Amino acid sequence: MTTDAWLQDIKWSGDGLVPVIVQEAGSGQVLMFAWMNREALALSQDEGYAVFWSRSRKKLWRKGEESGHRQKLVEIRLDCDADVLLITVQQIGGIACHTGRHHCFYRQLQGGKWVEVESVLKAPELIYGQKL
Amino acid sequence: MTTDAWLQDIKWSGDGLVPVIVQEAGSGQVLMFAWMNREALALSQDEGYAVFWSRSRKKLWRKGEESGHRQKLVEIRLDCDADVLLITVQQIGGIACHTGRHHCFYRQLQGGKWVEVESVLKAPELIYGQKL
Repeated sequence: MTTDAWLQDIKWSGDGLVPVIVQEAGSGQVLMFAWMNREALALSQDEGYAVFWSRSRKKLWRKGEESGHRQKLVEIRLDCDADVLLITVQQIGGIACHTGRHHCFYRQLQGGKWVEVESVLKAPELIYGQKL
Repeated sequence: MTTDAWLQDIKWSGDGLVPVIVQEAGSGQVLMFAWMNREALALSQDEGYAVFWSRSRKKLWRKGEESGHRQKLVEIRLDCDADVLLITVQQIGGIACHTGRHHCFYRQLQGGKWVEVESVLKAPELIYGQKL
């Protein structure tokens, strides 16, 4: 496990995680939100592509490992309290969300209701069926 | 407490919170990251300005209540898993960070070190001294 000083500078949560905001280079769109542990962040930096920690599956999650929709790292930033990361990426395939949309924040509050305002670019069964 | 259906649609964490990414209208810059509970979100919507839940102070936090650097709500979005919010705001005073910078993500990883890449626009003692 990497023990570089820059990893030590981060205030990891009690369960060893840090929240990560993923923003798209160029468009500036916020693509998704996820978590990293120390190993995921070190691997992201080493490999040049985003690696997260899946809290539900309790394992490392190389973004795009099934879909091919990897996220090429452009920049890593840390916030004032050293407990949140903002990464800038190039979204391979133009789809960040498992629903087949460009990004995960496709529901907008309108008149007291959540309204889907972005369309599915590729059906999930086509995205994830490719390697089954 | 508001019990609108749109608030019920959100998957609140075990401690009744949801992570909130704050993005600036126009520039698309990610200004900060914070948390809301149900009351904070309902108040944000009712008042038209961002209200968060301070986990450290364990109380509602009307962003800008001391500094005047309020965040006028433009849009509220929900992610695919219904457990993360993305809000778009107009940043009053142009300063979102308590360090006096435009936004909180002012440290960039460069050659294995965190480097401050954005300057302080107004000294914190001037921001917070105003109302002391």
